[in-house]
Amino acid sequence: MLVELRSDTFTKPTLAMREAMMSAEVGDDMVGEDPTVNRLEAHVAEMFGKEAAVYACSATQANQMAIWANCERGDELLIETTGHIGIYESGAPAVISGVTTRCIPGECGRLDVEHLQGQIRRGDDHYATTTLLCLENSTNIAGGRTYSLTQLQRVCNWAHTNDLRTHLDGARIFNACAVRGYSVADIAKQFDTVSVCFSKGLGCPMGAILVGDQKTIARARRARKLMGGALRQAGILAASGLYALDNHVDRLAEDHQNAKRLAAGLAEIPNVNIDLDAVETNLVYFEVNPEWGTAADLEKRAAENGVKLFSVGGSQRLRACTHLDINEDHVDRAIQVFRECLESVR
Amino acid sequence: MLVELRSDTFTKPTLAMREAMMSAEVGDDMVGEDPTVNRLEAHVAEMFGKEAAVYACSATQANQMAIWANCERGDELLIETTGHIGIYESGAPAVISGVTTRCIPGECGRLDVEHLQGQIRRGDDHYATTTLLCLENSTNIAGGRTYSLTQLQRVCNWAHTNDLRTHLDGARIFNACAVRGYSVADIAKQFDTVSVCFSKGLGCPMGAILVGDQKTIARARRARKLMGGALRQAGILAASGLYALDNHVDRLAEDHQNAKRLAAGLAEIPNVNIDLDAVETNLVYFEVNPEWGTAADLEKRAAENGVKLFSVGGSQRLRACTHLDINEDHVDRAIQVFRECLESVR
Amino acid sequence: MLVELRSDTFTKPTLAMREAMMSAEVGDDMVGEDPTVNRLEAHVAEMFGKEAAVYACSATQANQMAIWANCERGDELLIETTGHIGIYESGAPAVISGVTTRCIPGECGRLDVEHLQGQIRRGDDHYATTTLLCLENSTNIAGGRTYSLTQLQRVCNWAHTNDLRTHLDGARIFNACAVRGYSVADIAKQFDTVSVCFSKGLGCPMGAILVGDQKTIARARRARKLMGGALRQAGILAASGLYALDNHVDRLAEDHQNAKRLAAGLAEIPNVNIDLDAVETNLVYFEVNPEWGTAADLEKRAAENGVKLFSVGGSQRLRACTHLDINEDHVDRAIQVFRECLESVR
Amino acid sequence: MLVELRSDTFTKPTLAMREAMMSAEVGDDMVGEDPTVNRLEAHVAEMFGKEAAVYACSATQANQMAIWANCERGDELLIETTGHIGIYESGAPAVISGVTTRCIPGECGRLDVEHLQGQIRRGDDHYATTTLLCLENSTNIAGGRTYSLTQLQRVCNWAHTNDLRTHLDGARIFNACAVRGYSVADIAKQFDTVSVCFSKGLGCPMGAILVGDQKTIARARRARKLMGGALRQAGILAASGLYALDNHVDRLAEDHQNAKRLAAGLAEIPNVNIDLDAVETNLVYFEVNPEWGTAADLEKRAAENGVKLFSVGGSQRLRACTHLDINEDHVDRAIQVFRECLESVR
Repeated sequence: MLVELRSDTFTKPTLAMREAMMSAEVGDDMVGEDPTVNRLEAHVAEMFGKEAAVYACSATQANQMAIWANCERGDELLIETTGHIGIYESGAPAVISGVTTRCIPGECGRLDVEHLQGQIRRGDDHYATTTLLCLENSTNIAGGRTYSLTQLQRVCNWAHTNDLRTHLDGARIFNACAVRGYSVADIAKQFDTVSVCFSKGLGCPMGAILVGDQKTIARARRARKLMGGALRQAGILAASGLYALDNHVDRLAEDHQNAKRLAAGLAEIPNVNIDLDAVETNLVYFEVNPEWGTAADLEKRAAENGVKLFSVGGSQRLRACTHLDINEDHVDRAIQVFRECLESVR
Repeated sequence: MLVELRSDTFTKPTLAMREAMMSAEVGDDMVGEDPTVNRLEAHVAEMFGKEAAVYACSATQANQMAIWANCERGDELLIETTGHIGIYESGAPAVISGVTTRCIPGECGRLDVEHLQGQIRRGDDHYATTTLLCLENSTNIAGGRTYSLTQLQRVCNWAHTNDLRTHLDGARIFNACAVRGYSVADIAKQFDTVSVCFSKGLGCPMGAILVGDQKTIARARRARKLMGGALRQAGILAASGLYALDNHVDRLAEDHQNAKRLAAGLAEIPNVNIDLDAVETNLVYFEVNPEWGTAADLEKRAAENGVKLFSVGGSQRLRACTHLDINEDHVDRAIQVFRECLESVR
Repeated sequence: MLVELRSDTFTKPTLAMREAMMSAEVGDDMVGEDPTVNRLEAHVAEMFGKEAAVYACSATQANQMAIWANCERGDELLIETTGHIGIYESGAPAVISGVTTRCIPGECGRLDVEHLQGQIRRGDDHYATTTLLCLENSTNIAGGRTYSLTQLQRVCNWAHTNDLRTHLDGARIFNACAVRGYSVADIAKQFDTVSVCFSKGLGCPMGAILVGDQKTIARARRARKLMGGALRQAGILAASGLYALDNHVDRLAEDHQNAKRLAAGLAEIPNVNIDLDAVETNLVYFEVNPEWGTAADLEKRAAENGVKLFSVGGSQRLRACTHLDINEDHVDRAIQVFRECLESVR
Repeated sequence: MLVELRSDTFTKPTLAMREAMMSAEVGDDMVGEDPTVNRLEAHVAEMFGKEAAVYACSATQANQMAIWANCERGDELLIETTGHIGIYESGAPAVISGVTTRCIPGECGRLDVEHLQGQIRRGDDHYATTTLLCLENSTNIAGGRTYSLTQLQRVCNWAHTNDLRTHLDGARIFNACAVRGYSVADIAKQFDTVSVCFSKGLGCPMGAILVGDQKTIARARRARKLMGGALRQAGILAASGLYALDNHVDRLAEDHQNAKRLAAGLAEIPNVNIDLDAVETNLVYFEVNPEWGTAADLEKRAAENGVKLFSVGGSQRLRACTHLDINEDHVDRAIQVFRECLESVR
């Protein structure tokens, strides 16, 4: 039994999703004539309570389209130090948009007003002009943590009061909703733009979407073209998104249960350090005791036994991720393999 | 009967292509584990006689990846005045790569040594440094014209002798091969990088590919990530590319025959001006007599009668494009509609 | 006797100008406290009939500040093929502003409505958005030609009617005024922004200025900071500008007379091809007979005899430039040397 | 008596410096013919033990030229959180060079190996590629702190061992040398490039210089042209630099004594919080007791009494800066005014 815990990006489209894709009605989306893309964009815009939506090839592309659309060159965005946009998007804000990324340390990847006060720079030619606040919900490498609606409202209100635009990297927004009980519209209401990823927990082979007002999305659409992200018969892909929204949202709670099960199992294993309270969604971060070995050691040993996960950010930390292709048996097998690895001398 | 002559980008995936996509074996291409993408990249690299290939979301993305990979910021590329990169790629060379695009008038979209001599600027801080020559084969808005192998060799030899890098926008390279009888490897040999589009004559829903040496393609791959073009289970799409290479290349000659049939029919219609010798591939450009009306008039009237084509570049010029979804009957119907429109008073 | 005809940028500050610089009252211009800079900016703004002005280190910097201020990334500017911004500014529009430069062939470096009609691209995500028209008056490498006020009005009216912004590269605007008899305010009225160079005909050691409305100049000021062009006690330099405006504008007519004298002398020399009607300002372009030799040959031979000029743009063409440090005797000496060079066998 | 403590950029050129400028021999530096610029560049290169030097309009420009020259687009530089390049250069690394700025918290503006370990990101397309480490010596807003030679060697060795390029923002490098007793060559030896500012402690009206190896400085020179920083008869300004190197370096120790005198005086005043050990160079940072009022209050009140300083970075912090135009009497007057302000009820 192979257990793939590296990322929810590794999910493979199900047979039913493939069938939805296969039977998709398509057209040339470059001229706005793909009916399935149009349907997906309209559906997501409505679901998020926004005027418009635009399909993107990836969550990175959707985020970069948002940065282009919300900022002009010479501007600066604020993001928590562990944010995906600041670390894992190839420096694209600088390259494509001429925008400076400033990382602000928060709490478990979350920013609050207290972290942000005094951080806006503007009105002086010396500064990159702070114009955009980017949040992430749920967070990625900060541990799959979620924001309370109250905190989101507080920090976004502060931002708008201070004339900042706000973008949510909502790659895993549905995971946050599953945990917190709010709707995507509840969240989207706080932001100028929100990106959503279809290829993580939702299980699509690729794709993302960006929502916002008409004018901002028109600007984002142009940025998409410039990045080579304008597609033709993209309905094939949009069909997977529509299928996922119908079929793969409610089941995210299972991923969270599996993550908790995995975390609880790990907590019982010697040489593992894990904070069970920090496991909110489908991401399980833990550390191995340096006396046993390094994260890379465990990554290698587990892989040899059919359990794949990623060592991340430093020598002892690892991430295991539950998703559509992981069930309880996979979790139990993973726990067993981790135990065997960590109980033995390296 | 609807006749879609606007572009070969409007082709819809056939049932067989959809089936190939549906049954594709996939993995996470972001970590290099999609077997179908890997197979496509290896296959195309070998077919073109190059070390490496990288899949892209679109021909525009593949071209911009090539510009990033071949140039550094502050450089300049040379391209024929009608080239796609210079007109239809949103100014991306400036935005993404910091590269200046200089347009050189050629002959029917083709450049030769005589057009390029004296045009290289370098060795003086006043200049953007000319480092890249981009050609297009077959051409797009210059009329679907093709290069002879001799001319390609001559101009690329000149470029390399003068320390220019060379990129071929080969969006329709298979059309050129069908007309001229050379192989893609014959052409690719002349260039540092070649892009190919899967969503035009090859009939895929999206996608393109870039070939070149290992180092250049590694740089292009990074540029792809930065543009949000790195996908996950892209094997679904790569499968359409593999299918098209097996099944849709040889049939391009039919598109060219249909284009000639259409051109011949148009030549018989009053108020049409067309150069039959200029119709080499699947693009048929012609002009309407201003005494009859404008290109926009004909575009509108024909569409009302179920025949779609694009007016382009000025008030009298139109383009009709044959492709996978166009057969002789469609052509004959189009001729009939054009005749009815143009014989009547506008 | 050394005769420096390479460029009017070679002028050295006169003793009186140096004295004006030496006695300049200064402050920290970065905080707006340099009284001489403030005086210069106010004076030039008023002289040009514009709301605001900002001092720049060079004409290139002033032009690039204008492009930044008038455009956003992804935009496109139109300029005549021989324009300085398109050739001699290091590709800065692409690098700094993300702006594409499109060169339009005109007539002797001048654009008119007929050249520009049909050239605006916008409203389609495929295009770089055409937003700015840049003219040059007097022209540089197109031969020091000037625009009539009528033509400027016609082309700028067309531009504004078509929602283009307009920038004048007025590096040598005072030369044009001296020939045509219009004022700088007459010209500036047609444009959103105008740059002026102090280190060419005006004889300052460095510096330029950009004028426009308050908002645009504020944006340009920020761009200046970003390029490292914000200075401290710049009053030293501004003083040279003020001195030049008082003392070196009226005398430009002498440079033009000297240019005509030089041109007339050249016309008498064998192996020289010159169009006397094309010599309007202080730039004298001519060609040497290839049977005698190349422009580089003459450049070298003349330099050995103390007369310096530049070969330019191709194998036979040269440019001689009159300026503050050139009087009739220099001109006559230059003619004599050219004659000796060109009458002898190379 | 007016006491200008806002910045050492407010120094005005002395009469002797003005005389040196006035009598400078000049030429067109754009073609390399300004003898004074050439002399300054050669002199500074030798002084710093580097192959080459290039004059710049400002320290910001010199830093941005270094970033351009040391990095390619998509790269990332590391800098301490309080570094000038990260805060006060308008986001230019993103705009001009496409480079991401990542701020690393250090100790009093200084970075050591412990802060940097684990911070290099490369070899994964997800990352901006970390290629450049920028240090600042002496620091600016971190309090005018200096590095020991040992620390510089340690951190630069670490950087080079890890294939990072290194740039020193040496705007106030001579202040650091005055305190620490090392030479500029001792420091420059650790770095690939070093920038030096002429308009701070050295008292010139403008200007800076960048040193490094031939190839890097050639790249920087091109970047200078692109930013509009290539000047003509810049010898006027270079003369002030040469004068300052001869006459204003040794006297920096006086500025440091005056800073210590000021700091000692401030320490005696109620409602002031100051760390005397932190005053190493010419920058005196201190805080006012919030019960008395804010930094802005003191800035305003002191200015009304003829003593100018800047409130900085938050509501209670101020900076006073000693320099060429500040003597003991000025310091004593400032102390008196601060005392009067802070003893009274606001």
